[in-house]
Amino acid sequence: MTTVIDGKAVAADLREKVAQAVAKIKEEHNVQPALAVVLVGEDPASQVYVRNKHTATEKSGMRSIEHKLPETTREEDVVALVRNLNEDPEVDGILVQLPLPKHISSDRVLNEIHPDKDVDGLTEVNAGRLMLGKDGLVPCTPQGSVILAKTVKENLSGLKAVVVGRSILVGKPLAMLLLAENCTVTMAHSRTKDLAAVCREADILCAAVGIPRLIKGDWVKKGAIVIDVGINRIEEDGKKRLVGDVDYGAAKDAAAAITPVPGGVGPMTIACLLRNTVLAAARRRGLGAVEV
Amino acid sequence: MTTVIDGKAVAADLREKVAQAVAKIKEEHNVQPALAVVLVGEDPASQVYVRNKHTATEKSGMRSIEHKLPETTREEDVVALVRNLNEDPEVDGILVQLPLPKHISSDRVLNEIHPDKDVDGLTEVNAGRLMLGKDGLVPCTPQGSVILAKTVKENLSGLKAVVVGRSILVGKPLAMLLLAENCTVTMAHSRTKDLAAVCREADILCAAVGIPRLIKGDWVKKGAIVIDVGINRIEEDGKKRLVGDVDYGAAKDAAAAITPVPGGVGPMTIACLLRNTVLAAARRRGLGAVEV
Repeated sequence: MTTVIDGKAVAADLREKVAQAVAKIKEEHNVQPALAVVLVGEDPASQVYVRNKHTATEKSGMRSIEHKLPETTREEDVVALVRNLNEDPEVDGILVQLPLPKHISSDRVLNEIHPDKDVDGLTEVNAGRLMLGKDGLVPCTPQGSVILAKTVKENLSGLKAVVVGRSILVGKPLAMLLLAENCTVTMAHSRTKDLAAVCREADILCAAVGIPRLIKGDWVKKGAIVIDVGINRIEEDGKKRLVGDVDYGAAKDAAAAITPVPGGVGPMTIACLLRNTVLAAARRRGLGAVEV
Repeated sequence: MTTVIDGKAVAADLREKVAQAVAKIKEEHNVQPALAVVLVGEDPASQVYVRNKHTATEKSGMRSIEHKLPETTREEDVVALVRNLNEDPEVDGILVQLPLPKHISSDRVLNEIHPDKDVDGLTEVNAGRLMLGKDGLVPCTPQGSVILAKTVKENLSGLKAVVVGRSILVGKPLAMLLLAENCTVTMAHSRTKDLAAVCREADILCAAVGIPRLIKGDWVKKGAIVIDVGINRIEEDGKKRLVGDVDYGAAKDAAAAITPVPGGVGPMTIACLLRNTVLAAARRRGLGAVEV
Protein backbone atom coordinates (compact mmCIF):
# COMPACT_ATOMS: atom_id res chain seq x y z
CA MET A 1 0.00 0.00 0.00
CA THR A 2 1.29 3.40 -0.96
CA THR A 3 1.30 5.97 1.82
CA VAL A 4 -0.23 9.26 0.75
CA ILE A 5 1.65 11.79 2.85
CA ASP A 6 -0.92 14.04 4.47
CA GLY A 7 0.72 17.46 4.36
CA LYS A 8 -2.29 19.10 5.98
CA ALA A 9 -2.10 16.82 9.00
CA VAL A 10 1.69 17.13 9.35
CA ALA A 11 1.42 20.92 9.01
CA ALA A 12 -1.35 21.04 11.63
CA ASP A 13 0.82 18.98 13.95
CA LEU A 14 3.80 21.30 13.40
CA ARG A 15 1.62 24.36 14.01
CA GLU A 16 0.43 22.80 17.23
CA LYS A 17 4.04 22.21 18.32
CA VAL A 18 4.84 25.84 17.49
CA ALA A 19 1.84 26.99 19.53
CA GLN A 20 3.08 24.93 22.48
CA ALA A 21 6.56 26.42 22.17
CA VAL A 22 5.07 29.91 22.01
CA ALA A 23 2.96 29.24 25.10
CA LYS A 24 6.00 27.96 26.96
CA ILE A 25 8.04 31.05 26.02
CA LYS A 26 5.22 33.30 27.17
CA GLU A 27 4.90 31.49 30.45
CA GLU A 28 8.60 31.17 31.23
CA HIS A 29 9.90 34.45 29.86
CA ASN A 30 6.82 36.68 29.52
CA VAL A 31 7.71 37.23 25.87
CA GLN A 32 5.37 37.07 22.88
CA PRO A 33 7.26 36.35 19.63
CA ALA A 34 6.25 38.63 16.78
CA LEU A 35 6.30 38.31 13.00
CA ALA A 36 6.29 41.47 10.88
CA VAL A 37 5.04 41.15 7.30
CA VAL A 38 5.70 43.86 4.73
CA LEU A 39 3.35 44.01 1.73
CA VAL A 40 3.91 46.58 -0.99
CA GLY A 41 1.14 47.11 -3.56
CA GLU A 42 -2.17 45.50 -4.35
CA ASP A 43 -1.30 42.12 -5.91
CA PRO A 44 -4.42 40.02 -5.15
CA ALA A 45 -2.56 36.72 -4.65
CA SER A 46 -0.08 38.40 -2.29
CA GLN A 47 -2.96 39.86 -0.29
CA VAL A 48 -4.41 36.39 0.20
CA TYR A 49 -1.02 34.96 1.25
CA VAL A 50 -0.44 37.79 3.71
CA ARG A 51 -3.91 37.37 5.20
CA ASN A 52 -3.31 33.61 5.63
CA LYS A 53 0.03 34.23 7.30
CA HIS A 54 -1.56 36.81 9.59
CA THR A 55 -4.27 34.39 10.69
CA ALA A 56 -1.83 31.51 11.17
CA THR A 57 0.56 33.67 13.18
CA GLU A 58 -2.18 34.82 15.55
CA LYS A 59 -3.54 31.28 15.88
CA SER A 60 -0.11 30.13 17.00
CA GLY A 61 -0.20 32.70 19.81
CA MET A 62 2.37 35.00 18.22
CA ARG A 63 1.89 38.66 17.41
CA SER A 64 1.35 39.50 13.75
CA ILE A 65 2.39 42.95 12.60
CA GLU A 66 1.34 44.03 9.11
CA HIS A 67 2.87 46.87 7.15
CA LYS A 68 0.89 47.56 3.99
CA LEU A 69 2.49 50.13 1.74
CA PRO A 70 1.13 51.59 -1.49
CA GLU A 71 2.35 50.34 -4.89
CA THR A 72 4.17 53.64 -5.43
CA THR A 73 6.38 53.36 -2.32
CA ARG A 74 10.02 54.19 -3.05
CA GLU A 75 12.70 51.54 -2.58
CA GLU A 76 14.40 53.74 -0.01
CA ASP A 77 11.27 53.79 2.11
CA VAL A 78 10.89 50.00 2.05
CA VAL A 79 14.57 49.72 3.04
CA ALA A 80 14.03 52.23 5.86
CA LEU A 81 11.06 50.22 7.14
CA VAL A 82 13.11 46.99 7.09
CA ARG A 83 15.89 48.72 9.01
CA ASN A 84 13.41 49.91 11.61
CA LEU A 85 12.10 46.37 12.00
CA ASN A 86 15.70 45.12 12.31
CA GLU A 87 16.22 47.53 15.20
CA ASP A 88 12.89 46.85 16.89
CA PRO A 89 13.60 44.53 19.85
CA GLU A 90 10.00 43.27 19.85
CA VAL A 91 10.14 42.00 16.26
CA ASP A 92 11.50 38.45 15.86
CA GLY A 93 10.79 37.72 12.21
CA ILE A 94 10.58 39.92 9.13
CA LEU A 95 8.95 38.75 5.94
CA VAL A 96 8.80 40.87 2.81
CA GLN A 97 6.06 39.49 0.59
CA LEU A 98 7.22 38.88 -2.98
CA PRO A 99 6.91 39.93 -5.72
CA LEU A 100 7.72 43.57 -5.01
CA PRO A 101 6.69 46.25 -7.52
CA LYS A 102 9.10 46.40 -10.46
CA HIS A 103 10.76 49.66 -9.47
CA ILE A 104 12.02 48.06 -6.24
CA SER A 105 14.99 45.66 -6.16
CA SER A 106 13.89 42.63 -4.16
CA ASP A 107 17.50 41.55 -3.94
CA ARG A 108 18.45 44.78 -2.20
CA VAL A 109 15.43 44.80 0.12
CA LEU A 110 15.79 41.13 1.11
CA ASN A 111 19.47 41.51 1.94
CA GLU A 112 18.65 44.42 4.24
CA ILE A 113 16.78 42.01 6.52
CA HIS A 114 18.88 41.07 9.54
CA PRO A 115 19.88 37.41 9.04
CA ASP A 116 18.66 36.51 12.52
CA LYS A 117 15.17 37.83 11.66
CA ASP A 118 15.12 36.48 8.08
CA VAL A 119 12.37 33.89 8.63
CA ASP A 120 12.05 33.23 4.89
CA GLY A 121 15.75 32.27 4.81
CA LEU A 122 16.33 34.31 1.66
CA THR A 123 19.34 36.45 2.61
CA GLU A 124 22.84 35.69 1.35
CA VAL A 125 23.97 35.09 4.92
CA ASN A 126 21.34 32.42 5.59
CA ALA A 127 22.04 30.72 2.24
CA GLY A 128 25.70 30.71 3.28
CA ARG A 129 24.94 29.35 6.75
CA LEU A 130 22.94 26.52 5.20
CA MET A 131 25.80 25.65 2.87
CA LEU A 132 28.36 25.89 5.68
CA GLY A 133 26.23 23.66 7.93
CA LYS A 134 25.68 26.37 10.56
CA ASP A 135 22.55 27.22 12.49
CA GLY A 136 20.58 29.69 10.45
CA LEU A 137 17.09 30.20 9.11
CA VAL A 138 16.20 27.86 6.26
CA PRO A 139 13.73 28.56 3.43
CA CYS A 140 10.29 27.23 4.38
CA THR A 141 9.27 25.07 1.41
CA PRO A 142 12.43 22.92 1.28
CA GLN A 143 12.34 22.61 5.08
CA GLY A 144 8.74 21.44 4.86
CA SER A 145 9.69 18.91 2.16
CA VAL A 146 12.33 17.33 4.38
CA ILE A 147 9.95 17.18 7.34
CA LEU A 148 7.42 15.33 5.15
CA ALA A 149 10.05 12.84 3.92
CA LYS A 150 11.02 12.18 7.53
CA THR A 151 7.44 11.30 8.48
CA VAL A 152 7.94 8.25 6.23
CA LYS A 153 11.45 7.33 7.34
CA GLU A 154 12.97 9.17 10.24
CA ASN A 155 16.57 8.35 9.33
CA LEU A 156 17.34 9.29 5.74
CA SER A 157 21.08 8.60 6.09
CA GLY A 158 22.62 6.82 3.13
CA LEU A 159 19.55 7.12 0.92
CA LYS A 160 19.94 8.35 -2.63
CA ALA A 161 18.05 11.60 -3.07
CA VAL A 162 17.46 13.22 -6.42
CA VAL A 163 16.29 16.83 -6.50
CA VAL A 164 14.91 17.90 -9.87
CA GLY A 165 15.10 21.68 -10.19
CA ARG A 166 17.81 24.02 -8.94
CA SER A 167 15.96 27.16 -7.93
CA ILE A 168 17.34 29.25 -5.10
CA LEU A 169 13.96 29.08 -3.33
CA VAL A 170 13.59 25.30 -3.35
CA GLY A 171 15.96 23.08 -5.33
CA LYS A 172 19.35 24.20 -4.04
CA PRO A 173 18.41 24.59 -0.37
CA LEU A 174 16.52 21.28 -0.48
CA ALA A 175 19.66 19.56 -1.82
CA MET A 176 21.69 21.04 1.04
CA LEU A 177 19.12 19.96 3.65
CA LEU A 178 19.07 16.39 2.31
CA LEU A 179 22.87 16.39 2.34
CA ALA A 180 22.73 17.44 5.99
CA GLU A 181 20.48 14.37 6.54
CA ASN A 182 23.38 12.31 5.13
CA CYS A 183 21.66 11.46 1.86
CA THR A 184 23.72 11.01 -1.28
CA VAL A 185 22.23 13.91 -3.22
CA THR A 186 21.99 14.43 -6.96
CA MET A 187 21.01 17.85 -8.30
CA ALA A 188 19.22 17.42 -11.65
CA HIS A 189 17.77 20.11 -13.90
CA SER A 190 16.83 21.13 -17.43
CA ARG A 191 20.29 20.28 -18.80
CA THR A 192 20.35 16.82 -17.22
CA LYS A 193 20.69 14.05 -19.78
CA ASP A 194 18.31 11.09 -19.47
CA LEU A 195 16.44 12.58 -16.56
CA ALA A 196 14.25 9.46 -16.43
CA ALA A 197 17.26 7.24 -15.63
CA VAL A 198 18.56 9.71 -13.03
CA CYS A 199 15.15 9.76 -11.32
CA ARG A 200 14.91 5.96 -11.34
CA GLU A 201 17.98 5.86 -9.05
CA ALA A 202 16.24 7.86 -6.34
CA ASP A 203 15.16 6.50 -2.98
CA ILE A 204 13.85 10.02 -2.35
CA LEU A 205 12.66 11.82 -5.46
CA CYS A 206 11.92 15.53 -5.11
CA ALA A 207 10.41 17.51 -7.96
CA ALA A 208 10.58 21.30 -7.91
CA VAL A 209 10.55 22.52 -11.49
CA GLY A 210 7.10 23.95 -12.14
CA ILE A 211 6.31 21.73 -15.13
CA PRO A 212 2.98 19.89 -14.84
CA ARG A 213 3.49 16.11 -14.54
CA LEU A 214 7.06 16.19 -15.86
CA ILE A 215 7.97 13.15 -13.74
CA LYS A 216 6.33 10.06 -15.22
CA GLY A 217 5.19 7.01 -13.31
CA ASP A 218 7.92 4.77 -14.71
CA TRP A 219 10.61 7.25 -13.58
CA VAL A 220 9.83 6.33 -9.97
CA LYS A 221 11.79 3.51 -8.41
CA LYS A 222 9.73 0.87 -6.64
CA GLY A 223 9.53 1.85 -2.99
CA ALA A 224 10.72 5.45 -3.39
CA ILE A 225 9.53 8.42 -1.35
CA VAL A 226 8.21 11.04 -3.75
CA ILE A 227 8.02 14.69 -2.67
CA ASP A 228 6.22 16.87 -5.19
CA VAL A 229 6.88 20.58 -4.65
CA GLY A 230 5.21 21.71 -7.88
CA ILE A 231 1.90 23.54 -7.82
CA ASN A 232 0.76 24.07 -11.40
CA ARG A 233 -2.58 25.47 -12.49
CA ILE A 234 -3.79 23.70 -15.63
CA GLU A 235 -7.02 23.35 -17.54
CA GLU A 236 -8.11 19.81 -18.27
CA ASP A 237 -11.40 18.49 -19.61
CA GLY A 238 -12.69 22.04 -19.40
CA LYS A 239 -11.89 22.25 -15.68
CA LYS A 240 -9.25 24.22 -13.81
CA ARG A 241 -7.04 21.92 -11.75
CA LEU A 242 -3.98 22.08 -9.55
CA VAL A 243 -1.37 19.44 -10.42
CA GLY A 244 2.17 18.80 -9.31
CA ASP A 245 5.41 18.18 -11.20
CA VAL A 246 4.80 14.44 -10.81
CA ASP A 247 2.24 12.40 -12.73
CA TYR A 248 0.58 11.46 -9.46
CA GLY A 249 -1.80 8.76 -10.69
CA ALA A 250 0.96 6.76 -12.38
CA ALA A 251 3.72 7.47 -9.82
CA LYS A 252 1.56 6.46 -6.88
CA ASP A 253 1.71 2.79 -7.83
CA ALA A 254 5.50 2.59 -7.74
CA ALA A 255 6.13 4.87 -4.75
CA ALA A 256 6.15 3.70 -1.15
CA ALA A 257 4.99 7.17 -0.17
CA ILE A 258 4.01 10.27 -2.13
CA THR A 259 2.79 13.80 -1.46
CA PRO A 260 -0.41 14.80 -3.22
CA VAL A 261 -0.98 18.19 -4.87
CA PRO A 262 -2.74 19.98 -3.33
CA GLY A 263 -2.44 18.91 0.29
CA GLY A 264 1.21 17.81 0.32
CA VAL A 265 4.12 20.26 0.54
CA GLY A 266 1.88 23.32 0.16
CA PRO A 267 0.47 23.44 3.71
CA MET A 268 3.97 22.98 5.16
CA THR A 269 5.22 26.37 3.99
CA ILE A 270 3.31 28.55 6.44
CA ALA A 271 3.85 26.02 9.24
CA CYS A 272 7.63 26.24 8.65
CA LEU A 273 7.42 30.02 8.59
CA LEU A 274 5.87 29.92 12.08
CA ARG A 275 8.53 27.42 13.15
CA ASN A 276 11.28 29.74 11.89
CA THR A 277 9.72 32.66 13.75
CA VAL A 278 9.68 30.90 17.10
CA LEU A 279 13.22 29.57 16.51
CA ALA A 280 14.39 33.07 15.62
CA ALA A 281 12.74 34.49 18.73
CA ALA A 282 14.32 31.92 21.02
CA ARG A 283 17.81 32.36 19.52
CA ARG A 284 17.83 36.12 19.29
CA ARG A 285 16.37 36.62 22.75
CA GLY A 286 18.59 33.91 24.25
CA LEU A 287 15.68 31.85 25.56
CA GLY A 288 17.42 28.50 25.18
CA ALA A 289 16.56 25.60 22.88
CA VAL A 290 13.04 25.27 21.52
CA GLU A 291 11.67 21.96 20.34
CA VAL A 292 9.65 22.31 17.15
CA MET B 1 45.98 8.09 -24.51
CA THR B 2 45.18 9.49 -21.13
CA THR B 3 45.76 13.20 -20.73
CA VAL B 4 47.68 14.01 -17.57
CA ILE B 5 46.36 17.43 -16.65
CA ASP B 6 49.36 19.66 -16.01
CA GLY B 7 48.26 21.79 -13.07
CA LYS B 8 51.57 23.59 -12.94
CA ALA B 9 51.27 24.71 -16.56
CA VAL B 10 47.61 25.73 -16.21
CA ALA B 11 48.43 27.62 -13.01
CA ALA B 12 51.37 29.37 -14.68
CA ASP B 13 49.09 30.35 -17.54
CA LEU B 14 46.47 31.72 -15.13
CA ARG B 15 49.12 33.65 -13.19
CA GLU B 16 50.30 35.16 -16.46
CA LYS B 17 46.74 36.23 -17.29
CA VAL B 18 46.42 37.77 -13.82
CA ALA B 19 49.71 39.64 -14.34
CA GLN B 20 48.41 40.99 -17.65
CA ALA B 21 45.16 42.12 -16.01
CA VAL B 22 47.14 43.80 -13.22
CA ALA B 23 49.36 45.57 -15.77
CA LYS B 24 46.30 46.77 -17.65
CA ILE B 25 44.69 48.10 -14.47
CA LYS B 26 47.90 49.92 -13.56
CA GLU B 27 48.17 51.45 -17.00
CA GLU B 28 44.55 52.46 -17.42
CA HIS B 29 43.67 53.44 -13.87
CA ASN B 30 46.98 54.01 -12.12
CA VAL B 31 45.94 51.51 -9.45
CA GLN B 32 48.00 48.68 -7.97
CA PRO B 33 45.78 45.95 -6.49
CA ALA B 34 46.92 44.82 -3.05
CA LEU B 35 46.54 41.62 -1.04
CA ALA B 36 46.88 41.74 2.74
CA VAL B 37 47.79 38.52 4.52
CA VAL B 38 47.36 38.10 8.26
CA LEU B 39 49.48 35.47 9.99
CA VAL B 40 49.11 34.85 13.71
CA GLY B 41 51.71 32.71 15.43
CA GLU B 42 54.69 30.64 14.37
CA ASP B 43 53.21 27.55 12.66
CA PRO B 44 56.02 26.48 10.29
CA ALA B 45 53.74 25.23 7.48
CA SER B 46 51.73 28.46 7.61
CA GLN B 47 54.91 30.49 7.38
CA VAL B 48 55.87 28.65 4.18
CA TYR B 49 52.40 29.17 2.69
CA VAL B 50 52.42 32.86 3.53
CA ARG B 51 55.89 33.29 2.02
CA ASN B 52 54.77 31.55 -1.18
CA LYS B 53 51.69 33.75 -1.42
CA HIS B 54 53.81 36.85 -0.85
CA THR B 55 56.22 35.93 -3.65
CA ALA B 56 53.41 35.01 -6.06
CA THR B 57 51.51 38.23 -5.33
CA GLU B 58 54.56 40.39 -6.04
CA LYS B 59 55.40 38.41 -9.18
CA SER B 60 51.90 39.15 -10.49
CA GLY B 61 52.59 42.87 -10.11
CA MET B 62 50.30 43.30 -7.10
CA ARG B 63 51.25 44.69 -3.74
CA SER B 64 51.65 42.17 -0.93
CA ILE B 65 51.06 43.41 2.60
CA GLU B 66 52.00 41.10 5.46
CA HIS B 67 50.76 41.39 9.02
CA LYS B 68 52.60 38.98 11.29
CA LEU B 69 51.23 38.89 14.80
CA PRO B 70 52.58 36.95 17.78
CA GLU B 71 50.92 33.69 18.91
CA THR B 72 49.61 35.46 22.01
CA THR B 73 47.61 38.10 20.12
CA ARG B 74 44.09 38.54 21.50
CA GLU B 75 41.07 37.76 19.31
CA GLU B 76 39.93 41.36 19.68
CA ASP B 77 43.18 42.62 18.21
CA VAL B 78 42.96 40.32 15.18
CA VAL B 79 39.38 41.48 14.66
CA ALA B 80 40.50 45.11 14.95
CA LEU B 81 43.21 44.53 12.33
CA VAL B 82 40.71 42.93 9.95
CA ARG B 83 38.37 45.88 10.42
CA ASN B 84 41.18 48.30 9.62
CA LEU B 85 41.96 46.35 6.46
CA ASN B 86 38.25 46.41 5.55
CA GLU B 87 38.31 50.20 5.81
CA ASP B 88 41.62 50.67 3.98
CA PRO B 89 40.78 51.81 0.43
CA GLU B 90 44.14 50.54 -0.85
CA VAL B 91 43.54 46.94 0.27
CA ASP B 92 41.64 44.77 -2.24
CA GLY B 93 41.97 41.33 -0.71
CA ILE B 94 42.27 40.08 2.87
CA LEU B 95 43.47 36.60 3.71
CA VAL B 96 43.70 35.30 7.25
CA GLN B 97 46.04 32.31 7.27
CA LEU B 98 44.53 29.27 8.98
CA PRO B 99 44.81 27.65 11.44
CA LEU B 100 44.60 30.45 13.98
CA PRO B 101 45.84 29.83 17.53
CA LYS B 102 43.26 27.93 19.60
CA HIS B 103 42.21 30.90 21.73
CA ILE B 104 40.95 32.72 18.62
CA SER B 105 37.67 31.84 16.90
CA SER B 106 38.46 31.50 13.19
CA ASP B 107 34.75 31.60 12.47
CA ARG B 108 34.42 35.00 14.09
CA VAL B 109 37.58 36.43 12.52
CA LEU B 110 36.74 35.14 9.02
CA ASN B 111 33.23 36.57 9.11
CA GLU B 112 34.64 39.97 10.02
CA ILE B 113 36.29 40.14 6.58
CA HIS B 114 34.30 42.33 4.21
CA PRO B 115 32.73 39.95 1.65
CA ASP B 116 34.04 42.04 -1.24
CA LYS B 117 37.63 41.59 0.05
CA ASP B 118 37.20 37.94 1.08
CA VAL B 119 39.56 36.45 -1.52
CA ASP B 120 39.51 33.03 0.13
CA GLY B 121 35.71 32.96 -0.28
CA LEU B 122 35.21 31.72 3.27
CA THR B 123 32.62 34.15 4.64
CA GLU B 124 28.97 33.23 5.05
CA VAL B 125 28.04 35.92 2.55
CA ASN B 126 30.28 34.51 -0.20
CA ALA B 127 29.08 30.96 0.48
CA GLY B 128 25.56 32.33 0.12
CA ARG B 129 26.35 34.20 -3.08
CA LEU B 130 27.79 31.02 -4.59
CA MET B 131 24.66 29.08 -3.67
CA LEU B 132 22.40 31.85 -4.96
CA GLY B 133 24.33 32.05 -8.24
CA LYS B 134 25.46 35.64 -7.67
CA ASP B 135 28.83 37.22 -8.37
CA GLY B 136 30.99 36.71 -5.33
CA LEU B 137 34.40 35.41 -4.37
CA VAL B 138 34.71 31.64 -4.65
CA PRO B 139 37.05 29.40 -2.60
CA CYS B 140 40.30 28.88 -4.49
CA THR B 141 40.75 25.11 -4.55
CA PRO B 142 37.31 24.24 -5.96
CA GLN B 143 37.63 27.09 -8.46
CA GLY B 144 40.98 25.69 -9.56
CA SER B 145 39.47 22.21 -9.90
CA VAL B 146 36.79 23.47 -12.29
CA ILE B 147 39.34 25.39 -14.36
CA LEU B 148 41.38 22.19 -14.73
CA ALA B 149 38.32 20.17 -15.80
CA LYS B 150 37.54 22.83 -18.39
CA THR B 151 40.99 22.54 -19.93
CA VAL B 152 39.89 19.04 -20.99
CA LYS B 153 36.38 19.94 -22.11
CA GLU B 154 35.38 23.56 -22.26
CA ASN B 155 31.65 22.90 -22.10
CA LEU B 156 30.76 20.66 -19.17
CA SER B 157 26.99 21.11 -19.64
CA GLY B 158 24.98 17.93 -19.18
CA LEU B 159 27.89 15.87 -17.88
CA LYS B 160 27.42 13.80 -14.76
CA ALA B 161 29.73 15.04 -12.03
CA VAL B 162 30.31 13.20 -8.78
CA VAL B 163 31.98 15.06 -5.93
CA VAL B 164 33.25 12.75 -3.18
CA GLY B 165 33.62 14.73 0.04
CA ARG B 166 31.39 17.49 1.38
CA SER B 167 33.75 19.84 3.18
CA ILE B 168 32.92 23.52 3.26
CA LEU B 169 36.36 24.34 1.83
CA VAL B 170 36.17 22.08 -1.22
CA GLY B 171 33.34 19.56 -1.64
CA LYS B 172 30.27 21.75 -1.26
CA PRO B 173 31.54 24.78 -3.18
CA LEU B 174 32.89 22.48 -5.92
CA ALA B 175 29.44 20.89 -6.26
CA MET B 176 27.88 24.35 -6.61
CA LEU B 177 30.44 25.42 -9.22
CA LEU B 178 29.85 22.28 -11.29
CA LEU B 179 26.10 22.87 -11.02
CA ALA B 180 26.68 26.38 -12.38
CA GLU B 181 28.48 24.71 -15.32
CA ASN B 182 25.21 22.83 -15.90
CA CYS B 183 26.53 19.46 -14.79
CA THR B 184 24.18 16.99 -13.13
CA VAL B 185 25.94 16.90 -9.77
CA THR B 186 25.97 14.15 -7.15
CA MET B 187 27.35 14.90 -3.69
CA ALA B 188 28.80 11.71 -2.19
CA HIS B 189 30.46 11.24 1.20
CA SER B 190 31.27 8.85 4.01
CA ARG B 191 27.62 7.78 4.42
CA THR B 192 27.17 7.05 0.71
CA LYS B 193 26.22 3.44 0.03
CA ASP B 194 28.15 1.62 -2.70
CA LEU B 195 30.45 4.54 -3.38
CA ALA B 196 32.15 2.54 -6.13
CA ALA B 197 28.92 2.32 -8.13
CA VAL B 198 28.20 6.02 -7.60
CA CYS B 199 31.68 6.93 -8.83
CA ARG B 200 31.35 4.69 -11.89
CA GLU B 201 28.49 6.91 -13.09
CA ALA B 202 30.70 9.99 -13.22
CA ASP B 203 31.83 11.73 -16.39
CA ILE B 204 33.69 14.07 -14.04
CA LEU B 205 34.89 12.44 -10.84
CA CYS B 206 36.21 14.76 -8.14
CA ALA B 207 37.78 13.39 -4.97
CA ALA B 208 38.18 15.66 -1.96
CA VAL B 209 38.13 13.50 1.14
CA GLY B 210 41.69 13.27 2.40
CA ILE B 211 41.91 9.47 2.34
CA PRO B 212 44.93 8.13 0.43
CA ARG B 213 43.89 6.27 -2.74
CA LEU B 214 40.28 5.81 -1.61
CA ILE B 215 39.08 5.87 -5.23
CA LYS B 216 40.14 2.66 -6.96
CA GLY B 217 40.96 2.25 -10.62
CA ASP B 218 37.82 0.26 -11.37
CA TRP B 219 35.63 2.99 -9.84
CA VAL B 220 36.53 5.22 -12.78
CA LYS B 221 34.28 5.14 -15.83
CA LYS B 222 36.07 4.73 -19.15
CA GLY B 223 36.67 8.19 -20.55
CA ALA B 224 36.02 10.12 -17.34
CA ILE B 225 37.77 13.30 -16.25
CA VAL B 226 39.29 12.69 -12.82
CA ILE B 227 40.10 15.64 -10.55
CA ASP B 228 42.01 14.61 -7.45
CA VAL B 229 41.97 17.29 -4.75
CA GLY B 230 43.53 15.12 -2.06
CA ILE B 231 47.07 15.72 -0.86
CA ASN B 232 48.01 12.98 1.61
CA ARG B 233 51.42 12.42 3.13
CA ILE B 234 52.12 8.69 3.47
CA GLU B 235 55.10 6.45 4.07
CA GLU B 236 55.59 3.66 1.59
CA ASP B 237 58.52 1.31 1.06
CA GLY B 238 60.32 3.36 3.70
CA LYS B 239 59.87 6.57 1.70
CA LYS B 240 57.72 9.61 2.38
CA ARG B 241 55.36 10.28 -0.49
CA LEU B 242 52.52 12.60 -1.46
CA VAL B 243 49.51 10.78 -2.86
CA GLY B 244 45.99 11.81 -3.79
CA ASP B 245 42.56 10.44 -2.91
CA VAL B 246 42.64 8.49 -6.18
CA ASP B 247 44.70 5.39 -6.87
CA TYR B 248 46.45 7.21 -9.69
CA GLY B 249 48.29 4.32 -11.30
CA ALA B 250 45.15 2.24 -11.69
CA ALA B 251 42.74 5.10 -12.43
CA LYS B 252 44.93 6.55 -15.16
CA ASP B 253 44.16 3.70 -17.53
CA ALA B 254 40.40 4.21 -17.46
CA ALA B 255 40.34 8.00 -17.34
CA ALA B 256 40.41 10.22 -20.41
CA ALA B 257 42.15 12.84 -18.29
CA ILE B 258 43.44 12.93 -14.73
CA THR B 259 45.22 15.32 -12.39
CA PRO B 260 48.40 14.00 -10.78
CA VAL B 261 49.35 14.53 -7.13
CA PRO B 262 51.47 16.58 -6.74
CA GLY B 263 51.29 18.90 -9.73
CA GLY B 264 47.52 18.83 -10.33
CA VAL B 265 45.05 20.85 -8.30
CA GLY B 266 47.69 22.00 -5.79
CA PRO B 267 49.34 24.69 -7.90
CA MET B 268 45.95 26.12 -8.86
CA THR B 269 45.14 27.32 -5.36
CA ILE B 270 47.53 30.28 -5.22
CA ALA B 271 46.82 31.12 -8.86
CA CYS B 272 43.10 31.33 -8.04
CA LEU B 273 43.87 33.46 -4.99
CA LEU B 274 45.63 35.96 -7.25
CA ARG B 275 42.72 35.76 -9.69
CA ASN B 276 40.26 36.51 -6.87
CA THR B 277 42.37 39.46 -5.75
CA VAL B 278 42.40 41.13 -9.16
CA LEU B 279 38.67 40.40 -9.60
CA ALA B 280 37.97 41.89 -6.17
CA ALA B 281 40.05 44.97 -7.01
CA ALA B 282 38.27 45.53 -10.30
CA ARG B 283 34.79 45.11 -8.81
CA ARG B 284 35.32 47.12 -5.65
CA ARG B 285 37.08 49.97 -7.42
CA GLY B 286 34.58 49.94 -10.30
CA LEU B 287 37.25 49.36 -12.96
CA GLY B 288 34.99 47.35 -15.29
CA ALA B 289 35.24 43.71 -16.29
CA VAL B 290 38.56 41.90 -16.01
CA GLU B 291 39.32 38.81 -18.08
CA VAL B 292 41.12 36.17 -16.07
